[in-house]
Amino acid sequence: MTKILLLHGPNLNLLGVREPSVYGHMTLEQMDALIAKHAESIGVEVTAIQSNFEGDLINAIHTAVEKVNAIVINPGAFTHYSYAIRDAIAAVKMPTVEVHLSNVHCREEFRRNSVIAPVCAGQICGFGVYSYILGIEAAVHLVRK
Amino acid sequence: MTKILLLHGPNLNLLGVREPSVYGHMTLEQMDALIAKHAESIGVEVTAIQSNFEGDLINAIHTAVEKVNAIVINPGAFTHYSYAIRDAIAAVKMPTVEVHLSNVHCREEFRRNSVIAPVCAGQICGFGVYSYILGIEAAVHLVRK
Amino acid sequence: MTKILLLHGPNLNLLGVREPSVYGHMTLEQMDALIAKHAESIGVEVTAIQSNFEGDLINAIHTAVEKVNAIVINPGAFTHYSYAIRDAIAAVKMPTVEVHLSNVHCREEFRRNSVIAPVCAGQICGFGVYSYILGIEAAVHLVRK
Amino acid sequence: MTKILLLHGPNLNLLGVREPSVYGHMTLEQMDALIAKHAESIGVEVTAIQSNFEGDLINAIHTAVEKVNAIVINPGAFTHYSYAIRDAIAAVKMPTVEVHLSNVHCREEFRRNSVIAPVCAGQICGFGVYSYILGIEAAVHLVRK
Amino acid sequence: MTKILLLHGPNLNLLGVREPSVYGHMTLEQMDALIAKHAESIGVEVTAIQSNFEGDLINAIHTAVEKVNAIVINPGAFTHYSYAIRDAIAAVKMPTVEVHLSNVHCREEFRRNSVIAPVCAGQICGFGVYSYILGIEAAVHLVRK
Amino acid sequence: MTKILLLHGPNLNLLGVREPSVYGHMTLEQMDALIAKHAESIGVEVTAIQSNFEGDLINAIHTAVEKVNAIVINPGAFTHYSYAIRDAIAAVKMPTVEVHLSNVHCREEFRRNSVIAPVCAGQICGFGVYSYILGIEAAVHLVRK
Amino acid sequence: MTKILLLHGPNLNLLGVREPSVYGHMTLEQMDALIAKHAESIGVEVTAIQSNFEGDLINAIHTAVEKVNAIVINPGAFTHYSYAIRDAIAAVKMPTVEVHLSNVHCREEFRRNSVIAPVCAGQICGFGVYSYILGIEAAVHLVRK
Amino acid sequence: MTKILLLHGPNLNLLGVREPSVYGHMTLEQMDALIAKHAESIGVEVTAIQSNFEGDLINAIHTAVEKVNAIVINPGAFTHYSYAIRDAIAAVKMPTVEVHLSNVHCREEFRRNSVIAPVCAGQICGFGVYSYILGIEAAVHLVRK
Amino acid sequence: MTKILLLHGPNLNLLGVREPSVYGHMTLEQMDALIAKHAESIGVEVTAIQSNFEGDLINAIHTAVEKVNAIVINPGAFTHYSYAIRDAIAAVKMPTVEVHLSNVHCREEFRRNSVIAPVCAGQICGFGVYSYILGIEAAVHLVRK
Amino acid sequence: MTKILLLHGPNLNLLGVREPSVYGHMTLEQMDALIAKHAESIGVEVTAIQSNFEGDLINAIHTAVEKVNAIVINPGAFTHYSYAIRDAIAAVKMPTVEVHLSNVHCREEFRRNSVIAPVCAGQICGFGVYSYILGIEAAVHLVRK
Amino acid sequence: MTKILLLHGPNLNLLGVREPSVYGHMTLEQMDALIAKHAESIGVEVTAIQSNFEGDLINAIHTAVEKVNAIVINPGAFTHYSYAIRDAIAAVKMPTVEVHLSNVHCREEFRRNSVIAPVCAGQICGFGVYSYILGIEAAVHLVRK
Amino acid sequence: MTKILLLHGPNLNLLGVREPSVYGHMTLEQMDALIAKHAESIGVEVTAIQSNFEGDLINAIHTAVEKVNAIVINPGAFTHYSYAIRDAIAAVKMPTVEVHLSNVHCREEFRRNSVIAPVCAGQICGFGVYSYILGIEAAVHLVRK
Repeated sequence: MTKILLLHGPNLNLLGVREPSVYGHMTLEQMDALIAKHAESIGVEVTAIQSNFEGDLINAIHTAVEKVNAIVINPGAFTHYSYAIRDAIAAVKMPTVEVHLSNVHCREEFRRNSVIAPVCAGQICGFGVYSYILGIEAAVHLVRK
Repeated sequence: MTKILLLHGPNLNLLGVREPSVYGHMTLEQMDALIAKHAESIGVEVTAIQSNFEGDLINAIHTAVEKVNAIVINPGAFTHYSYAIRDAIAAVKMPTVEVHLSNVHCREEFRRNSVIAPVCAGQICGFGVYSYILGIEAAVHLVRK
Repeated sequence: MTKILLLHGPNLNLLGVREPSVYGHMTLEQMDALIAKHAESIGVEVTAIQSNFEGDLINAIHTAVEKVNAIVINPGAFTHYSYAIRDAIAAVKMPTVEVHLSNVHCREEFRRNSVIAPVCAGQICGFGVYSYILGIEAAVHLVRK
Repeated sequence: MTKILLLHGPNLNLLGVREPSVYGHMTLEQMDALIAKHAESIGVEVTAIQSNFEGDLINAIHTAVEKVNAIVINPGAFTHYSYAIRDAIAAVKMPTVEVHLSNVHCREEFRRNSVIAPVCAGQICGFGVYSYILGIEAAVHLVRK
Repeated sequence: MTKILLLHGPNLNLLGVREPSVYGHMTLEQMDALIAKHAESIGVEVTAIQSNFEGDLINAIHTAVEKVNAIVINPGAFTHYSYAIRDAIAAVKMPTVEVHLSNVHCREEFRRNSVIAPVCAGQICGFGVYSYILGIEAAVHLVRK
Repeated sequence: MTKILLLHGPNLNLLGVREPSVYGHMTLEQMDALIAKHAESIGVEVTAIQSNFEGDLINAIHTAVEKVNAIVINPGAFTHYSYAIRDAIAAVKMPTVEVHLSNVHCREEFRRNSVIAPVCAGQICGFGVYSYILGIEAAVHLVRK
Repeated sequence: MTKILLLHGPNLNLLGVREPSVYGHMTLEQMDALIAKHAESIGVEVTAIQSNFEGDLINAIHTAVEKVNAIVINPGAFTHYSYAIRDAIAAVKMPTVEVHLSNVHCREEFRRNSVIAPVCAGQICGFGVYSYILGIEAAVHLVRK
Repeated sequence: MTKILLLHGPNLNLLGVREPSVYGHMTLEQMDALIAKHAESIGVEVTAIQSNFEGDLINAIHTAVEKVNAIVINPGAFTHYSYAIRDAIAAVKMPTVEVHLSNVHCREEFRRNSVIAPVCAGQICGFGVYSYILGIEAAVHLVRK
Repeated sequence: MTKILLLHGPNLNLLGVREPSVYGHMTLEQMDALIAKHAESIGVEVTAIQSNFEGDLINAIHTAVEKVNAIVINPGAFTHYSYAIRDAIAAVKMPTVEVHLSNVHCREEFRRNSVIAPVCAGQICGFGVYSYILGIEAAVHLVRK
Repeated sequence: MTKILLLHGPNLNLLGVREPSVYGHMTLEQMDALIAKHAESIGVEVTAIQSNFEGDLINAIHTAVEKVNAIVINPGAFTHYSYAIRDAIAAVKMPTVEVHLSNVHCREEFRRNSVIAPVCAGQICGFGVYSYILGIEAAVHLVRK
Repeated sequence: MTKILLLHGPNLNLLGVREPSVYGHMTLEQMDALIAKHAESIGVEVTAIQSNFEGDLINAIHTAVEKVNAIVINPGAFTHYSYAIRDAIAAVKMPTVEVHLSNVHCREEFRRNSVIAPVCAGQICGFGVYSYILGIEAAVHLVRK
Repeated sequence: MTKILLLHGPNLNLLGVREPSVYGHMTLEQMDALIAKHAESIGVEVTAIQSNFEGDLINAIHTAVEKVNAIVINPGAFTHYSYAIRDAIAAVKMPTVEVHLSNVHCREEFRRNSVIAPVCAGQICGFGVYSYILGIEAAVHLVRK
């Protein structure tokens, strides 16, 4: 069975709790459940981790090597400066998909620059929760092709 | 039935014919067939157009309004300078998904800048032909949600 | 009789049809009629051409030499990158006025840069359809002075 | 009767006196008379003020609120750095047209940047004294539309 | 008794008169009275000066040396380019606090740069009229510490 | 009773222990006591947290919502790159005041840029420990106004 | 027999007709004849195409593969922004020489940047019509070496 | 007799009064006397004007035309942004020498850029009061050569 | 006995485990042993700490003051953005040597910028594990000189 | 007989000796002989000089005036910073052709900038030794036209 | 007797020989004689050296220490990049005056930047040969003050 | 026996003679002796060359190939602009170590950029004379590993 590590970066734990008018009423827990359900339907097992600590995400990426086949990551604000996460992904050489809830290209200028994208297989942004669903499908495609 | 306009920008007509080691042996025709088949399986009709003329793509976007529900576009090199295509997409106010075969973030610096992405719903890159499949799914999601 | 070539760049064919709340309900056809009427009242004949193809606009500028006394051009999005249109205007050495419907200085940063303005006689922006009327008057002034 | 405040920035008092080969032999006084005459013919009363002091122009803009319907301003060199004049125009919320005698786009690079244009209704440049005439017409159009 | 010079830069004379929805209905006169009253309650005498002329502010700073113990200044738009005011403050070597009504960091990009702040003791922004109250307290602290 | 969360970023735990010639002999503990005492005098309860971990500060901001009325934060060096803290503050939508001991405008160039200030209500810098006192007062003002 | 495709970009059709003082009295037709004659003398057949449409040039490059051994191209103003032409040349992997009539290094700053040169074999500029002659020789050298 | 207008920009009235350790104990009055005496010895009459108002300097430059043969100006902080003074000097077309007390090249970065120098005959900086003496000599040389 | 704190930044725990072709087969543990052995031979005791958490490294630097004589640090990716680590090193005022396994000058552009180097005594890069040996020697030199 | 000075900049003396896989096995001596032979065949005499000293190249350019009709120069790395060689070429006002063995546009970014090209007649790059042959032909063309 | 070393950088040996319309008919030899004569009249002995080699100028600066009291240098094009000459001047800690024949501020942009000026006492430019005379006087002033 | 070429760039001949408070009282001769002695103790023969001429350093690098096993170079100010020395090092493909006496990262901004470092094996800076000792050790390590 294909196994995928789903990483949520800083502040994503607030999903659905705050700013529902912007991000909707779905909580991180509910979203993870939705993703897991969809994943299961295509024979994929998803392990989800959220942290506001850069180090936690790096550690999770490191341990992914023995446990999963691919990574789907929404690095949140770390997208724009965490060269350490970039190096972690580059080091584990595992198919990795970067996803974002919003279209990073129509917000503040700094959100357009991802220091992580160059070491991922690809990037998906702008489709809300559905960005994750597409990210899982992309990761599965990379693993199975 | 959901209808989607699939736009291929400049040089994509060379797909499969040239540089097969890079882009694979699948021709544009074969790829369009593959996409159409996948689309059909989820109740979507795809009309595909390729042109090396910026004006053709703009015209196609204009006429999309009465004919389709969403646009999936790989603007090719126009991604980086065609403010005219950007304005066309902004004007028709139709769900639009930008897709790229390669991960634009790990090639030449200029490829990282898309003047079109800010007016699209989202962007998907890096998964080869599968970027299109995901793009179709994303567009359908935008239409049906 | 003074003759003026009126050039409309990409997406201006959508005028009045789309985004009426922004650009008003006047179509390109109606606007051209209004301009022609005003022009006629001051003894000016206007030939209007719209195209979404950069090449069409260049060809129109080239042929202007034998047919008209001045050019009024709204290059649309080509304003920001078409060095080819710039070179065409510089080559025909004919009084040329650049006009814009909106005030390009209070929109996205990229809209403030016109690669075409340096080779025109002058530039008028921000007055909607009236920018064209002023552009015609400016062109007439350049021809008759 | 429509009333317009006509503001001339620094060094415009030298018009016609110095560099006649560049700016012509018309003095500021003569130009103001010409503009006033044209304005009168379309039912507009023009009050003209020239100053080499930024503070004078700001004061004039402030007092414009109770006295006129619109402002036509050639900020001269203040165009490129007077954020104070910009704030004054933004504060009085009155239709304002920025005009320039020369085409600022084909001179020194710094002349292309106007810190004032973003808060004006529009900008007209490159037609010599006629820039003012067009500016008056544009202002009247803004007032009467 | 501690004496403080309160300097208001360009356009602050419009306070309360224009754009009340943004800046409130308090006029500069009323605000000065409010500040004076608060100052008096902590044994401070405030002399307030407003001018739209850079030179007036420089002169006021020069004469501050013999008259007051500290300066609180809202340089308005001069914040962004008046190196002359900067030099005046640097020359008098008197405790100086820069204040702003609005949070300059969430407006136009140019408002983030203060050429004056490097020669002040500190900067306070974003609290409306209360920025001045805090500025007075900060200045008193600098004088009395 | 108004409750305020006081956040100290990285290295502030060294206060008073190291570089007393620069930052004085007051330790973080002593400074917190001083601030708490002042706060108490105006009916404010302050909870102070210091951490060298970005994640700790983010977590503290998240939990602030149910516990306090406002936040006063000295992000230390995180000021210049922690978009994650910026997003946390933006998400909790609580009155937040950024404070700095030193005048960030007269030190190294990079210290002038705060990625956090745009989402705070305001910023205070340059007054040593007194920046915190002013920050508390500003926060109280924001809560009670 | 060595076959070369000679591509002329936008505005080159005006050669000799306009600005003879700058570009000489030789028309594009006459220049093509001169080049063809020289080419013939060294056993080379030249097919010349001029277009003001970027798409035409791209199409011509695509079809070059089966017809010629090398390309000599003067991209005109497209030199500075047509990443689409760049991609076309990169795709066909055919010896390509970029030529310019004038020395692009002593004109406007933007003319110094060629987005096309990095994918060509080499570049020749500054020798008028003779740049083409040298370009043909260089292309022949690349083919025959 | 050769006549020279000596212009002192903002804050130079503080000379000798403040910061004597930096600028010496000579006041502006004493310096002007010294310069006048030296000038007299070489048959030159100097008229000195100091102002903290940009407008005063512009006016003085304008009236210089009928009264003096050359200008020596220390624009103070206006050096770095007063395009208005630049335009004034360019307009009067009179030999003008820019002088600075200090070596502007070894202070803050912004002091290295003079917007005025390009329209002067030359620039002298770094020799304290002696910069003015050299400036007078340079101006005389320009007048008499 | 000279005591040195050896700090390894993010991802260095992967040494030898991953990408052996690039970084060799030596693990972090083996490298630390090698360094310790060399250090011992010159009378130096090394305490090694690795963490993927910025906060851990800051804490380690803080506690270094009472325990060691110098610090040798390979900040890994934190090199490029951790102003917090920079401030920690600046605060403890202890001889610190920055080392890197690879030559940061011949990799991605961002790797050339170290925000930490300006507060270290010196920097050594490019010699693999031997960079650490040299770093220890340099630190000892700084302590003993 | 047409005489040409052929100048080789720094490191070109290593040609053929080092990196034969890149630059081929032809030494500078052999290349000079080849060029001389070709030149002779078209009635041209070539004097070749190589130096690793900027001053030698400047001196050679100076003395060219009385000895040759044109210069062909490969400035090597001096291309990117020797404004002194630029000034030397500009001073002697002799037809000069800049040549490069490799295509400078597809190597490191700094190689794209030539400070020398603006004062040459033209530039040729990318054709190996053949760049010199073309350079000789171009120079002859410039002399004889 | 005051002794001054006069250094002429690259290409100044061409003075008077080439481009007399620009630089006049005076040769370097004649100019040196003129300067020496003037210097003699104020009790100064001048030793003049010209070289097109950066190393010669550095050596001359080094040996100046034991031989002269001050240096007057026209670094020619080295002005813009010779950090080595900058370091030489900084090392000898001798009063040094940078002079230029032309006004470097109204020529190409690169000529405005002097890497040498920050370590000189001052800079004089724009007065032709007279720049040297003023430079000698400035140097004497620095020595004798 | 391992042989190393030790290259000292411009102004290093002044070591110990000038600015002893900064660089100490050790002369270049004494430093070379110290280095030679240390080298000898580890079986290394050092040949030291100093020159203020870029060309001399290039020549020395060229001839190193047949004579030594590695190069240790302190390029002095050439570090920041000598692409010619960079090309020389790249050409000889010999282990090369760049060393600097001072920490280039805490001086002027321009000193942080080394155009030479990308082609060296590594870089060592900030340890005074000891940088050279470490550089020798690093070079020996590269040769013997």
